Amino acid sequence: MELIKPYKKSFDYSYTLGAFPTIELIKGNAEIVKAVYLHSSFTDREAILQLCKNNQIPVLENDKLFHKISDKENCFVIGVFSKYEDHLNSDKPHIVLVNPSNMGNLGTIIRTAVGMGIYDIALITPCADLFHPKTIRSSMGAVFKIRHQHFPSFHEYRKNNMKHDVYTFMLNGSKTLEIQNCPKSQLFSLVFGNEATGLDDSFLEVGTSILIPQSPDVDSLNITIAVGIASFLFTHQ
Amino acid sequence: MELIKPYKKSFDYSYTLGAFPTIELIKGNAEIVKAVYLHSSFTDREAILQLCKNNQIPVLENDKLFHKISDKENCFVIGVFSKYEDHLNSDKPHIVLVNPSNMGNLGTIIRTAVGMGIYDIALITPCADLFHPKTIRSSMGAVFKIRHQHFPSFHEYRKNNMKHDVYTFMLNGSKTLEIQNCPKSQLFSLVFGNEATGLDDSFLEVGTSILIPQSPDVDSLNITIAVGIASFLFTHQ
Repeated sequence: MELIKPYKKSFDYSYTLGAFPTIELIKGNAEIVKAVYLHSSFTDREAILQLCKNNQIPVLENDKLFHKISDKENCFVIGVFSKYEDHLNSDKPHIVLVNPSNMGNLGTIIRTAVGMGIYDIALITPCADLFHPKTIRSSMGAVFKIRHQHFPSFHEYRKNNMKHDVYTFMLNGSKTLEIQNCPKSQLFSLVFGNEATGLDDSFLEVGTSILIPQSPDVDSLNITIAVGIASFLFTHQ
Repeated sequence: MELIKPYKKSFDYSYTLGAFPTIELIKGNAEIVKAVYLHSSFTDREAILQLCKNNQIPVLENDKLFHKISDKENCFVIGVFSKYEDHLNSDKPHIVLVNPSNMGNLGTIIRTAVGMGIYDIALITPCADLFHPKTIRSSMGAVFKIRHQHFPSFHEYRKNNMKHDVYTFMLNGSKTLEIQNCPKSQLFSLVFGNEATGLDDSFLEVGTSILIPQSPDVDSLNITIAVGIASFLFTHQ
Protein backbone atom coordinates (compact mmCIF):
# COMPACT_ATOMS: atom_id res chain seq x y z
CA MET A 1 0.00 0.00 0.00
CA GLU A 2 1.19 3.48 -0.84
CA LEU A 3 0.94 6.25 1.71
CA ILE A 4 -2.67 7.26 2.41
CA LYS A 5 -3.43 10.96 2.02
CA PRO A 6 -6.52 13.12 2.50
CA TYR A 7 -8.79 12.53 -0.47
CA LYS A 8 -8.50 14.57 -3.65
CA LYS A 9 -10.64 14.29 -6.76
CA SER A 10 -7.54 13.72 -8.89
CA PHE A 11 -6.66 10.45 -7.10
CA ASP A 12 -7.35 7.17 -8.86
CA TYR A 13 -8.50 5.73 -5.53
CA SER A 14 -10.90 6.82 -2.80
CA TYR A 15 -12.18 5.86 0.65
CA THR A 16 -15.26 4.54 2.32
CA LEU A 17 -15.56 6.00 5.81
CA GLY A 18 -17.36 3.81 8.32
CA ALA A 19 -18.25 0.16 8.62
CA PHE A 20 -21.54 0.32 6.72
CA PRO A 21 -20.31 1.74 3.40
CA THR A 22 -17.14 -0.34 3.61
CA ILE A 23 -19.19 -3.54 3.88
CA GLU A 24 -21.36 -2.37 0.97
CA LEU A 25 -18.18 -1.74 -1.01
CA ILE A 26 -16.79 -5.22 -0.40
CA LYS A 27 -20.12 -6.93 -1.08
CA GLY A 28 -20.62 -4.95 -4.29
CA ASN A 29 -17.12 -4.77 -5.79
CA ALA A 30 -14.61 -6.78 -3.76
CA GLU A 31 -12.11 -6.89 -6.63
CA ILE A 32 -11.48 -3.10 -6.47
CA VAL A 33 -10.76 -3.00 -2.72
CA LYS A 34 -7.08 -2.40 -2.01
CA ALA A 35 -7.22 -2.54 1.77
CA VAL A 36 -9.38 -2.08 4.83
CA TYR A 37 -8.17 -0.16 7.89
CA LEU A 38 -9.64 -0.93 11.30
CA HIS A 39 -9.18 1.45 14.22
CA SER A 40 -7.76 -0.26 17.30
CA SER A 41 -10.87 0.78 19.27
CA PHE A 42 -13.23 -0.87 16.75
CA THR A 43 -14.80 -3.88 18.43
CA ASP A 44 -17.45 -5.32 16.12
CA ARG A 45 -14.83 -6.94 13.89
CA GLU A 46 -16.05 -10.41 13.11
CA ALA A 47 -18.23 -9.77 10.05
CA ILE A 48 -15.80 -7.43 8.35
CA LEU A 49 -12.76 -9.62 9.07
CA GLN A 50 -14.56 -12.60 7.55
CA LEU A 51 -15.58 -10.58 4.49
CA CYS A 52 -11.99 -9.41 3.97
CA LYS A 53 -10.63 -12.91 4.43
CA ASN A 54 -13.10 -14.40 1.95
CA ASN A 55 -12.11 -11.78 -0.60
CA GLN A 56 -8.36 -11.76 0.16
CA ILE A 57 -8.40 -8.09 1.14
CA PRO A 58 -5.56 -6.95 3.42
CA VAL A 59 -6.68 -5.69 6.84
CA LEU A 60 -4.43 -3.04 8.36
CA GLU A 61 -4.27 -1.02 11.56
CA ASN A 62 -3.08 2.58 11.64
CA ASP A 63 -4.95 4.76 14.11
CA LYS A 64 -3.16 7.95 13.06
CA LEU A 65 -4.68 7.58 9.62
CA PHE A 66 -8.23 8.07 10.81
CA HIS A 67 -8.09 11.72 11.80
CA LYS A 68 -6.14 12.47 8.63
CA ILE A 69 -8.74 10.96 6.33
CA SER A 70 -12.05 11.45 8.13
CA ASP A 71 -13.59 14.63 9.52
CA LYS A 72 -16.01 12.62 11.66
CA GLU A 73 -14.95 11.36 15.06
CA ASN A 74 -17.04 8.20 14.93
CA CYS A 75 -15.26 6.63 11.97
CA PHE A 76 -13.52 3.36 12.88
CA VAL A 77 -13.34 1.61 9.50
CA ILE A 78 -11.82 2.88 6.25
CA GLY A 79 -11.93 1.06 2.94
CA VAL A 80 -9.46 1.98 0.20
CA PHE A 81 -10.61 1.22 -3.33
CA SER A 82 -9.71 1.94 -6.96
CA LYS A 83 -12.14 4.21 -8.80
CA TYR A 84 -13.86 2.80 -11.85
CA GLU A 85 -16.21 3.73 -14.68
CA ASP A 86 -19.09 1.55 -15.90
CA HIS A 87 -21.19 1.41 -19.01
CA LEU A 88 -24.89 1.95 -18.53
CA ASN A 89 -27.18 -0.94 -19.38
CA SER A 90 -29.05 0.38 -22.40
CA ASP A 91 -32.00 -1.94 -21.76
CA LYS A 92 -32.74 -0.61 -18.27
CA PRO A 93 -34.32 2.65 -17.04
CA HIS A 94 -31.89 5.50 -16.39
CA ILE A 95 -31.65 8.57 -14.23
CA VAL A 96 -29.68 11.34 -15.93
CA LEU A 97 -28.21 14.09 -13.75
CA VAL A 98 -27.12 17.19 -15.63
CA ASN A 99 -24.34 18.98 -13.72
CA PRO A 100 -25.31 18.01 -10.18
CA SER A 101 -23.13 20.13 -7.89
CA ASN A 102 -23.76 18.95 -4.34
CA MET A 103 -22.16 15.71 -3.12
CA GLY A 104 -24.74 15.13 -0.40
CA ASN A 105 -27.55 15.47 -2.93
CA LEU A 106 -25.78 13.17 -5.39
CA GLY A 107 -25.38 10.47 -2.74
CA THR A 108 -29.01 10.80 -1.62
CA ILE A 109 -30.20 10.56 -5.24
CA ILE A 110 -28.21 7.35 -5.76
CA ARG A 111 -29.61 5.84 -2.56
CA THR A 112 -33.12 6.82 -3.70
CA ALA A 113 -32.65 5.44 -7.22
CA VAL A 114 -31.47 2.09 -5.89
CA GLY A 115 -34.37 2.11 -3.43
CA MET A 116 -36.72 2.43 -6.43
CA GLY A 117 -34.91 -0.27 -8.42
CA ILE A 118 -33.15 2.08 -10.86
CA TYR A 119 -29.51 1.00 -11.13
CA ASP A 120 -28.18 3.07 -14.06
CA ILE A 121 -27.13 6.68 -13.45
CA ALA A 122 -25.76 8.97 -16.16
CA LEU A 123 -23.73 11.96 -15.01
CA ILE A 124 -23.32 14.91 -17.36
CA THR A 125 -20.08 16.72 -16.57
CA PRO A 126 -19.13 18.98 -14.91
CA CYS A 127 -20.62 17.29 -11.89
CA ALA A 128 -20.04 16.52 -8.23
CA ASP A 129 -17.47 13.83 -7.51
CA LEU A 130 -19.24 10.45 -7.38
CA PHE A 131 -16.37 8.87 -5.45
CA HIS A 132 -15.80 11.60 -2.88
CA PRO A 133 -16.16 10.07 0.58
CA LYS A 134 -19.01 12.52 1.27
CA THR A 135 -20.99 11.28 -1.72
CA ILE A 136 -20.37 7.68 -0.73
CA ARG A 137 -21.49 8.36 2.82
CA SER A 138 -24.71 10.08 1.85
CA SER A 139 -25.44 7.25 -0.61
CA MET A 140 -25.14 4.84 2.35
CA GLY A 141 -22.93 2.73 0.12
CA ALA A 142 -25.54 2.52 -2.66
CA VAL A 143 -22.96 4.00 -5.05
CA PHE A 144 -21.48 0.47 -5.19
CA LYS A 145 -24.81 -0.97 -6.33
CA ILE A 146 -25.20 1.15 -9.47
CA ARG A 147 -23.71 1.38 -12.92
CA HIS A 148 -22.57 4.94 -13.59
CA GLN A 149 -21.23 6.60 -16.70
CA HIS A 150 -20.00 10.16 -17.25
CA PHE A 151 -20.83 12.03 -20.47
CA PRO A 152 -19.55 15.43 -21.60
CA SER A 153 -23.04 16.46 -22.74
CA PHE A 154 -26.63 15.26 -22.77
CA HIS A 155 -26.25 14.91 -26.53
CA GLU A 156 -23.44 12.37 -26.02
CA TYR A 157 -25.56 10.47 -23.52
CA ARG A 158 -28.50 10.42 -25.92
CA LYS A 159 -26.40 9.24 -28.89
CA ASN A 160 -25.49 6.16 -26.87
CA ASN A 161 -28.97 5.55 -25.50
CA MET A 162 -31.48 6.14 -28.26
CA LYS A 163 -34.16 3.68 -27.20
CA HIS A 164 -35.24 5.43 -24.03
CA ASP A 165 -38.33 7.60 -23.61
CA VAL A 166 -36.89 10.84 -22.24
CA TYR A 167 -38.64 12.83 -19.49
CA THR A 168 -37.12 16.14 -18.42
CA PHE A 169 -38.13 17.61 -15.06
CA MET A 170 -38.46 21.38 -15.33
CA LEU A 171 -40.35 24.17 -13.57
CA ASN A 172 -41.69 25.19 -16.99
CA GLY A 173 -42.43 21.61 -18.03
CA SER A 174 -45.37 21.19 -20.40
CA LYS A 175 -47.00 18.29 -18.57
CA THR A 176 -48.02 18.50 -14.92
CA LEU A 177 -47.29 15.22 -13.17
CA GLU A 178 -50.24 13.69 -11.36
CA ILE A 179 -50.76 10.21 -10.04
CA GLN A 180 -53.41 9.57 -12.65
CA ASN A 181 -51.42 10.75 -15.66
CA CYS A 182 -47.87 9.57 -14.99
CA PRO A 183 -46.49 8.29 -18.32
CA LYS A 184 -46.30 4.53 -18.62
CA SER A 185 -42.95 3.61 -20.10
CA GLN A 186 -40.96 0.40 -19.89
CA LEU A 187 -37.70 2.09 -20.81
CA PHE A 188 -37.35 5.65 -19.55
CA SER A 189 -34.70 8.25 -18.84
CA LEU A 190 -35.61 10.69 -16.06
CA VAL A 191 -33.51 13.84 -16.51
CA PHE A 192 -32.85 16.37 -13.73
CA GLY A 193 -30.85 19.61 -13.77
CA ASN A 194 -28.42 21.39 -11.52
CA GLU A 195 -29.61 22.41 -8.02
CA ALA A 196 -29.38 26.14 -8.66
CA THR A 197 -30.19 26.46 -12.35
CA GLY A 198 -32.33 23.45 -13.26
CA LEU A 199 -32.44 22.37 -16.91
CA ASP A 200 -32.17 25.09 -19.53
CA ASP A 201 -34.91 25.56 -22.12
CA SER A 202 -33.13 23.41 -24.72
CA PHE A 203 -34.34 20.43 -22.65
CA LEU A 204 -37.96 21.33 -23.49
CA GLU A 205 -37.25 19.80 -26.91
CA VAL A 206 -35.52 16.51 -26.11
CA GLY A 207 -38.49 14.52 -24.82
CA THR A 208 -41.53 15.11 -22.65
CA SER A 209 -40.98 17.96 -20.20
CA ILE A 210 -42.65 17.45 -16.83
CA LEU A 211 -43.53 19.77 -13.97
CA ILE A 212 -43.97 18.28 -10.52
CA PRO A 213 -46.82 20.40 -9.14
CA GLN A 214 -45.92 22.46 -6.09
CA SER A 215 -47.43 25.30 -4.10
CA PRO A 216 -46.50 28.90 -4.95
CA ASP A 217 -45.05 29.15 -1.44
CA VAL A 218 -41.81 27.45 -2.47
CA ASP A 219 -39.36 28.43 -5.14
CA SER A 220 -38.83 24.79 -6.11
CA LEU A 221 -38.49 21.36 -4.57
CA ASN A 222 -35.09 20.10 -3.52
CA ILE A 223 -33.65 18.02 -6.39
CA THR A 224 -33.48 14.90 -4.22
CA ILE A 225 -37.22 15.19 -3.50
CA ALA A 226 -38.01 15.66 -7.19
CA VAL A 227 -36.04 12.51 -8.00
CA GLY A 228 -37.80 10.63 -5.20
CA ILE A 229 -41.33 11.53 -6.31
CA ALA A 230 -40.62 11.03 -10.01
CA SER A 231 -38.81 7.73 -9.65
CA PHE A 232 -41.50 6.36 -7.31
CA LEU A 233 -44.27 7.22 -9.78
CA PHE A 234 -42.42 5.91 -12.85
CA THR A 235 -41.52 2.62 -11.19
CA HIS A 236 -44.97 1.97 -9.66
CA GLN A 237 -47.25 2.16 -12.68
CA MET B 1 -30.24 45.98 19.52
CA GLU B 2 -28.25 43.92 21.95
CA LEU B 3 -24.88 42.55 20.96
CA ILE B 4 -25.12 39.84 18.30
CA LYS B 5 -23.43 36.54 19.15
CA PRO B 6 -22.94 33.24 17.35
CA TYR B 7 -26.24 31.36 17.51
CA LYS B 8 -27.10 29.08 20.39
CA LYS B 9 -30.23 27.03 20.82
CA SER B 10 -30.89 28.66 24.20
CA PHE B 11 -31.30 32.15 22.64
CA ASP B 12 -34.80 33.56 22.28
CA TYR B 13 -33.79 34.94 18.90
CA SER B 14 -32.11 33.53 15.78
CA TYR B 15 -30.78 34.53 12.37
CA THR B 16 -31.58 34.13 8.73
CA LEU B 17 -28.36 33.96 6.71
CA GLY B 18 -28.64 35.24 3.16
CA ALA B 19 -30.99 37.46 1.20
CA PHE B 20 -33.47 34.76 0.19
CA PRO B 21 -34.44 33.43 3.63
CA THR B 22 -34.36 36.95 5.07
CA ILE B 23 -36.89 38.13 2.48
CA GLU B 24 -39.04 35.06 3.20
CA LEU B 25 -38.83 35.92 6.91
CA ILE B 26 -40.00 39.50 6.41
CA LYS B 27 -42.77 38.53 4.01
CA GLY B 28 -43.99 35.78 6.33
CA ASN B 29 -43.60 37.30 9.81
CA ALA B 30 -42.47 40.93 9.63
CA GLU B 31 -43.59 41.63 13.19
CA ILE B 32 -40.95 39.32 14.69
CA VAL B 33 -37.99 40.82 12.80
CA LYS B 34 -35.75 42.85 15.09
CA ALA B 35 -33.22 44.04 12.51
CA VAL B 36 -31.63 43.32 9.16
CA TYR B 37 -27.88 43.60 8.63
CA LEU B 38 -26.50 44.31 5.16
CA HIS B 39 -22.84 43.76 4.32
CA SER B 40 -21.19 46.80 2.78
CA SER B 41 -20.38 44.79 -0.34
CA PHE B 42 -24.03 43.76 -0.84
CA THR B 43 -25.28 45.53 -3.95
CA ASP B 44 -28.78 44.26 -4.75
CA ARG B 45 -30.34 46.35 -1.98
CA GLU B 46 -33.45 47.92 -3.40
CA ALA B 47 -36.02 45.17 -2.75
CA ILE B 48 -34.86 44.41 0.77
CA LEU B 49 -34.54 48.09 1.76
CA GLN B 50 -38.08 48.71 0.56
CA LEU B 51 -39.37 45.67 2.45
CA CYS B 52 -37.68 46.82 5.65
CA LYS B 53 -38.97 50.37 5.22
CA ASN B 54 -42.53 49.18 4.64
CA ASN B 55 -42.33 47.09 7.80
CA GLN B 56 -40.38 49.58 9.93
CA ILE B 57 -37.48 47.17 10.38
CA PRO B 58 -34.13 48.78 11.25
CA VAL B 59 -31.40 48.21 8.64
CA LEU B 60 -27.88 48.11 10.05
CA GLU B 61 -24.34 47.71 8.71
CA ASN B 62 -21.66 45.85 10.61
CA ASP B 63 -19.32 43.87 8.37
CA LYS B 64 -17.45 42.31 11.29
CA LEU B 65 -20.64 40.60 12.34
CA PHE B 66 -20.85 38.44 9.24
CA HIS B 67 -17.88 36.17 9.83
CA LYS B 68 -18.92 35.83 13.46
CA ILE B 69 -22.42 34.64 12.66
CA SER B 70 -22.10 32.83 9.34
CA ASP B 71 -19.78 30.00 8.36
CA LYS B 72 -20.42 30.64 4.66
CA GLU B 73 -18.41 33.25 2.81
CA ASN B 74 -21.21 34.24 0.45
CA CYS B 75 -23.56 35.59 3.13
CA PHE B 76 -24.28 39.30 2.74
CA VAL B 77 -27.62 39.66 4.52
CA ILE B 78 -28.55 38.64 8.06
CA GLY B 79 -32.01 38.91 9.57
CA VAL B 80 -32.42 38.87 13.36
CA PHE B 81 -35.78 37.64 14.61
CA SER B 82 -37.55 36.55 17.80
CA LYS B 83 -38.36 32.87 17.99
CA TYR B 84 -42.00 31.87 18.35
CA GLU B 85 -44.28 28.90 18.82
CA ASP B 86 -47.55 28.35 16.91
CA HIS B 87 -50.60 26.23 17.43
CA LEU B 88 -51.33 23.72 14.70
CA ASN B 89 -54.54 24.18 12.77
CA SER B 90 -56.56 21.13 13.83
CA ASP B 91 -58.64 21.24 10.64
CA LYS B 92 -55.67 20.89 8.28
CA PRO B 93 -53.41 17.93 7.39
CA HIS B 94 -50.32 17.53 9.54
CA ILE B 95 -46.85 16.10 9.25
CA VAL B 96 -45.61 14.74 12.59
CA LEU B 97 -41.86 14.30 13.04
CA VAL B 98 -40.88 12.11 15.97
CA ASN B 99 -37.41 13.08 17.23
CA PRO B 100 -35.89 14.30 13.94
CA SER B 101 -32.18 14.78 14.66
CA ASN B 102 -30.66 16.37 11.56
CA MET B 103 -31.18 20.08 10.88
CA GLY B 104 -30.60 19.77 7.14
CA ASN B 105 -33.23 17.04 6.92
CA LEU B 106 -35.68 19.03 9.04
CA GLY B 107 -35.32 22.06 6.77
CA THR B 108 -35.71 19.96 3.62
CA ILE B 109 -38.83 18.29 5.06
CA ILE B 110 -40.40 21.69 5.80
CA ARG B 111 -39.61 22.93 2.27
CA THR B 112 -41.13 19.73 0.87
CA ALA B 113 -44.25 19.93 3.05
CA VAL B 114 -44.92 23.52 1.99
CA GLY B 115 -44.31 22.49 -1.62
CA MET B 116 -47.07 19.90 -1.23
CA GLY B 117 -49.41 22.35 0.50
CA ILE B 118 -49.03 20.96 4.02
CA TYR B 119 -48.50 23.88 6.41
CA ASP B 120 -48.79 22.28 9.85
CA ILE B 121 -45.77 20.48 11.32
CA ALA B 122 -45.74 18.80 14.72
CA LEU B 123 -42.35 18.19 16.31
CA ILE B 124 -42.04 15.56 19.03
CA THR B 125 -39.15 16.44 21.35
CA PRO B 126 -36.25 15.89 21.63
CA CYS B 127 -35.75 17.16 18.10
CA ALA B 128 -33.44 19.20 15.92
CA ASP B 129 -33.60 22.97 16.41
CA LEU B 130 -36.24 24.40 14.05
CA PHE B 131 -34.78 27.89 14.31
CA HIS B 132 -31.10 27.05 13.89
CA PRO B 133 -29.76 29.02 10.93
CA LYS B 134 -28.86 25.69 9.24
CA THR B 135 -32.45 24.47 9.44
CA ILE B 136 -33.72 27.78 8.11
CA ARG B 137 -31.24 27.70 5.24
CA SER B 138 -32.09 24.18 4.15
CA SER B 139 -35.80 25.05 4.36
CA MET B 140 -35.10 27.90 1.91
CA GLY B 141 -37.11 30.11 4.24
CA ALA B 142 -40.16 27.80 4.15
CA VAL B 143 -39.95 27.57 7.96
CA PHE B 144 -41.65 31.00 8.00
CA LYS B 145 -44.58 29.67 5.97
CA ILE B 146 -45.61 26.91 8.37
CA ARG B 147 -47.33 26.59 11.71
CA HIS B 148 -45.19 24.49 14.04
CA GLN B 149 -45.83 23.11 17.50
CA HIS B 150 -43.59 21.09 19.82
CA PHE B 151 -45.02 18.23 21.90
CA PRO B 152 -43.25 16.17 24.58
CA SER B 153 -44.73 12.94 23.18
CA PHE B 154 -46.84 11.62 20.33
CA HIS B 155 -49.53 10.95 22.93
CA GLU B 156 -49.67 14.68 23.78
CA TYR B 157 -49.88 15.55 20.09
CA ARG B 158 -52.71 13.06 19.59
CA LYS B 159 -54.67 14.29 22.61
CA ASN B 160 -54.80 17.72 20.99
CA ASN B 161 -55.53 16.46 17.47
CA MET B 162 -58.06 13.67 17.71
CA LYS B 163 -59.83 14.16 14.39
CA HIS B 164 -56.94 13.16 12.12
CA ASP B 165 -56.52 9.84 10.36
CA VAL B 166 -53.04 8.77 11.48
CA TYR B 167 -50.58 7.09 9.09
CA THR B 168 -47.25 5.93 10.48
CA PHE B 169 -44.38 5.28 8.05
CA MET B 170 -42.39 2.24 9.15
CA LEU B 171 -40.18 -0.40 7.56
CA ASN B 172 -42.45 -3.01 9.17
CA GLY B 173 -45.65 -1.18 8.23
CA SER B 174 -48.66 -3.39 7.57
CA LYS B 175 -49.78 -1.70 4.36
CA THR B 176 -47.48 -1.35 1.34
CA LEU B 177 -47.98 2.04 -0.29
CA GLU B 178 -48.78 1.92 -3.98
CA ILE B 179 -50.18 4.55 -6.28
CA GLN B 180 -53.39 2.61 -6.64
CA ASN B 181 -54.01 2.03 -2.94
CA CYS B 182 -52.91 5.25 -1.27
CA PRO B 183 -55.48 5.99 1.46
CA LYS B 184 -57.91 8.78 0.63
CA SER B 185 -58.24 11.04 3.65
CA GLN B 186 -59.30 14.66 3.91
CA LEU B 187 -57.67 15.12 7.29
CA PHE B 188 -54.49 13.12 7.81
CA SER B 189 -51.41 13.04 10.00
CA LEU B 190 -48.33 11.57 8.31
CA VAL B 191 -45.95 10.39 11.06
CA PHE B 192 -42.21 9.82 10.50
CA GLY B 193 -39.51 8.66 12.90
CA ASN B 194 -35.93 9.53 13.70
CA GLU B 195 -33.33 9.13 10.93
CA ALA B 196 -31.41 6.34 12.65
CA THR B 197 -34.10 4.49 14.57
CA GLY B 198 -37.38 5.11 12.73
CA LEU B 199 -40.63 4.71 14.69
CA ASP B 200 -40.69 2.08 17.40
CA ASP B 201 -43.24 -0.73 17.31
CA SER B 202 -45.68 1.12 19.57
CA PHE B 203 -46.51 3.19 16.47
CA LEU B 204 -47.93 0.06 14.78
CA GLU B 205 -50.97 0.57 17.00
CA VAL B 206 -51.78 4.28 16.68
CA GLY B 207 -53.21 4.31 13.16
CA THR B 208 -52.48 2.70 9.82
CA SER B 209 -48.82 1.70 9.50
CA ILE B 210 -47.42 2.10 6.00
CA LEU B 211 -44.34 0.74 4.24
CA ILE B 212 -43.01 2.64 1.25
CA PRO B 213 -41.85 -0.22 -0.98
CA GLN B 214 -38.10 -0.24 -1.69
CA SER B 215 -35.56 -2.61 -3.14
CA PRO B 216 -33.62 -4.94 -0.84
CA ASP B 217 -30.45 -3.15 -2.03
CA VAL B 218 -31.01 -0.25 0.37
CA ASP B 219 -31.34 -0.30 4.11
CA SER B 220 -34.04 2.38 3.99
CA LEU B 221 -34.93 5.57 2.17
CA ASN B 222 -33.67 8.88 3.47
CA ILE B 223 -36.39 10.39 5.69
CA THR B 224 -36.72 13.45 3.44
CA ILE B 225 -37.45 11.17 0.45
CA ALA B 226 -40.03 9.20 2.44
CA VAL B 227 -41.78 12.46 3.37
CA GLY B 228 -41.63 13.63 -0.25
CA ILE B 229 -43.19 10.48 -1.71
CA ALA B 230 -45.81 10.13 1.02
CA SER B 231 -46.88 13.76 1.02
CA PHE B 232 -47.11 13.84 -2.79
CA LEU B 233 -49.34 10.77 -2.84
CA PHE B 234 -51.59 11.89 0.02
CA THR B 235 -52.10 15.37 -1.44
CA HIS B 236 -52.73 14.22 -5.03
CA GLN B 237 -55.61 11.76 -4.63
